[in-house]
Order: sequence, then structure tokens, then C-alpha cells
Amino acid sequence: MTKQTLKVVKIGGNVINNEEALFSFLKDFSELDGPKILVHGGGRKATEVSSAMGLKPQMINGRRVTDEATVEVVTMVYAGLLNKKVTAKLQSFGCNAMGLSGADANCILAHKRVVKDIDYGFAGDVDEINSEIIDVLLKNGVTPVFCAITHNKKGQLLNTNADTIASEVTIGMSELYNTELNFVFELKGVLESIDDKDSVITEINAEKYEQLVAQGIIADGMLPKMHNCFNSLKKGVGKVKIGDASLVKKSTKLYTTLSL
Amino acid sequence: MTKQTLKVVKIGGNVINNEEALFSFLKDFSELDGPKILVHGGGRKATEVSSAMGLKPQMINGRRVTDEATVEVVTMVYAGLLNKKVTAKLQSFGCNAMGLSGADANCILAHKRVVKDIDYGFAGDVDEINSEIIDVLLKNGVTPVFCAITHNKKGQLLNTNADTIASEVTIGMSELYNTELNFVFELKGVLESIDDKDSVITEINAEKYEQLVAQGIIADGMLPKMHNCFNSLKKGVGKVKIGDASLVKKSTKLYTTLSL
Repeated sequence: MTKQTLKVVKIGGNVINNEEALFSFLKDFSELDGPKILVHGGGRKATEVSSAMGLKPQMINGRRVTDEATVEVVTMVYAGLLNKKVTAKLQSFGCNAMGLSGADANCILAHKRVVKDIDYGFAGDVDEINSEIIDVLLKNGVTPVFCAITHNKKGQLLNTNADTIASEVTIGMSELYNTELNFVFELKGVLESIDDKDSVITEINAEKYEQLVAQGIIADGMLPKMHNCFNSLKKGVGKVKIGDASLVKKSTKLYTTLSL
Repeated sequence: MTKQTLKVVKIGGNVINNEEALFSFLKDFSELDGPKILVHGGGRKATEVSSAMGLKPQMINGRRVTDEATVEVVTMVYAGLLNKKVTAKLQSFGCNAMGLSGADANCILAHKRVVKDIDYGFAGDVDEINSEIIDVLLKNGVTPVFCAITHNKKGQLLNTNADTIASEVTIGMSELYNTELNFVFELKGVLESIDDKDSVITEINAEKYEQLVAQGIIADGMLPKMHNCFNSLKKGVGKVKIGDASLVKKSTKLYTTLSL
């Protein structure tokens, strides 16, 4: 039997932070055919709430260091405010969304990141996806909406990178579905030249990826993102696409497709 | 075919506010046999966060008046922090909990309370329970954990009374299950005398209820609670129990059972 195609879409702060952009994206997302999953990152709000609560956000290598007070704030903002706001909005567009953290029905099991040089605090590294219950939801017409909070099944909530969650969920569902992983970010795709926002490299395979890294065209923040993408492809994800919020529109032609 | 028994348990601030009491209750709850649902109220934390965010909580007749900033805070605290903390803790006890708001899979549809004398703001009155998807979850061994946030399917989240949610969910599930609704509060049950905490009236039927109201034994805050309970019984709920956190322990004998 041919497997159905499952689309997983990840959005980050650039979409989350702008209510108009977010709602417009959610409208487009709600119109995507077939089973789908949304994964959302955090955005500015967590920093705002942290400050109001008197906490000072600490970042190391672009990752938030999560002490106990901070894990409470990100759980409030990601799993509470953002997740439910996105879910309620999708419901208004007729998409039967269900907001979830990794703790819910043990969907995403993680462990506290092992301390080597840096203690990231309550940061979670993903161990396992509960594909069975996610499949039950999809088969019942539900669209799971994951925030970037996981748990360790020992009662501890863990702050987890949203790109990683999107990848791991897609990998986890790849036995049951043909999977397509979509990363929405601030650019139209991977650019040939950072100064030309339309210089999208439309196809990148593993060989070309190595070349682009060697040439310094893929660098800095794009490196872990692309590494994550190719890792997903190696682990069974059928297709990865990178582009801006128009990525989910049927009319969009300009984005980067990654393959092995 | 005989219907299965479904237990719905509601806990409020008195359990939520004390972490030790909460975890002990959750351990007992996790050991309850058969399909079950937990509904939790808010507690002190929302007030704490509101103050930190510079909001002044406003209460009319014991109900929070919910302006736009307040609905954001209660969504953060109820649907985020409390709901996920409870869920993660239940998971650690081996109960396959899934934290949900009413927006998730449109489980609880509500409308903004109609303004008569008082505008309660974004307070929700429940219209409909999506018993079908809740049943799918239960049949798959999942224990739904509802916070007191609903939505209107037009994108608006609504703050909703947790007792009402517990009742409406139980009523909604009564076509599919023999239902038992358990209200956990600060006392061992409905008391004959408020000065004697052990003077529990173990059985109250509709007739006795009228008598107790006439005698002034059921008064003040207990009136809407009891009205809510009898309303649930009239609408198909099989049994209502009221007691303290030990209500879910198998060994507990002292509580109030309500029947028609």
C-alpha cells in the first residue's frame, strides 16, 4: 500500500512575533491538503515575560540557558500562550488543530542535555517520538501543533530546540508516512549571495551541500540548520524544503529543496 | 452492552497551590482504574504572574473579570505552566496524561458570556463538548487533563469556570459512559456544621438538598457548586461525589454523594 504524504511545517520567531504575519501564515497552513503537523518556536514573548518576572535571559551559542524559573516561563509562553493562540486561530480557519507539548501523551520523550563544557540547564535532547498516538490523532483528522517543550517522563519539563523537534517528529513519522519537512524562516531559501534576497539555490543535494560549506556560502547560523536537515534526510525523511512563510502557499515556486 | 464507567475528577486552587499536596493527589489519581479525566482550576499563580506583568486582578462575585491582557496571563498559567506540570507529573507516575484546553481539537466550544449587568470580559460559557475525540483519546489509553480555558472557534480563547468545565465534560460523555463526577475541594464533604470538619453529610438527594438550602446549611459559595452538581445529575451524570483530596483514594470512606 502506498503511504500517505505527511507534511510537517516548522515556524520560528520571525513568524510568531508578528501577529499579522502569523495569522496570514496560519490561514495558508490551514488550507494545506492531507495530514499535517505544525511545530512552532518561541519568539520575543518569552523574553518579555522573563523580564517582567525579573529574570535575566542567558544565551550561550544561540541557545537559551534554562534554569528552573526560566523553564516555568517558557512553559507558560510556548505551551500556554503561543500554542493555544495558534491552535485557536487554526480552529477559526476550520483546521482541527490540537496544541501539544512533548509531555502530552508522552509524544516526545527527551532527557536533560548532558553537561560537557556548558550546562544548558533544563534543555532537552530528544530520545523518542510516540508515533502511534500521533498517528491516531492524524487518522482522526486532528492536526497536532507542537511547541518546543518536552519532558523526561520523570516529571521534568524540558526546553527543546524547535528545529530539532520538527526534525525528530518527522523522522519518527517516516515509517508510517512519506514525510515532507518544511522549515519556514526569514529568507526565501538558501541564498547564493546574502546581499541578493532572491538568489535562492533551489536544489541542494548532499554533494552540493559539502561544496557550499567549503565555499563559505553556507555558514554561521545556517550550518546547524542544514546539518539538521541532512541528518533528517539520512534518517528517512523524504523531502526537506526551506523558505519564507509563503512556503505553504500552493502558488509558491521559490524555495530550497534539500535531498541526499 | 454495558457502558464502561468514566471518572471525571476536578481539583481547584487548594490542591494546585501546594506542590506537595498536588503531587500526592496526582499519585493517587494515577492509580485510579479505568478511563478517567482530570480537570484543574487555576490557583494563586495566575495572580502572581498578573501582578508581575503589572495587571491588577479584578473579581466580581468570585469570578475573575478577564480583559485581553488577563486572558493572556491565564492562558499562560492554566494552559501552559499548570497543565503541563500536572501532565508531566502524571506521566512520571505511569498515567498517560494529555494536557488540553477547550481549543485543542475543539474539545470544548464556548461563547463569550453575554453582558447583562456585568461584563465579565473574555469569560466563556460552554456550548458543546466534542465527546467523539475525547472518546478516541480514552479508547487509546490516554487520560485527558483539561485546564479551564475554552475557545469560541472564532480564534478567541476564553477563561472558563473549572467546575463548569468538569460538569459539562461529564455531561457530554454521559451518552457513551456511565459517568462519575468527583469534586475535590478543601473540606471532607458537605458539612452538617461548619465548625465540625468531620460532620460530613454522606448522602444528599434532591429533596434533602432543598431542605439543607432552606435550613441555611448549604449557603454562600456552596450554593452555586451544589446547583451545578444537581444540574449535572439531571443532565445524565450518574453520580457526583464531593470531598477532599483523599476522595480518589480507594480507602476513603468519608465524602458526600449526591443523587437525584
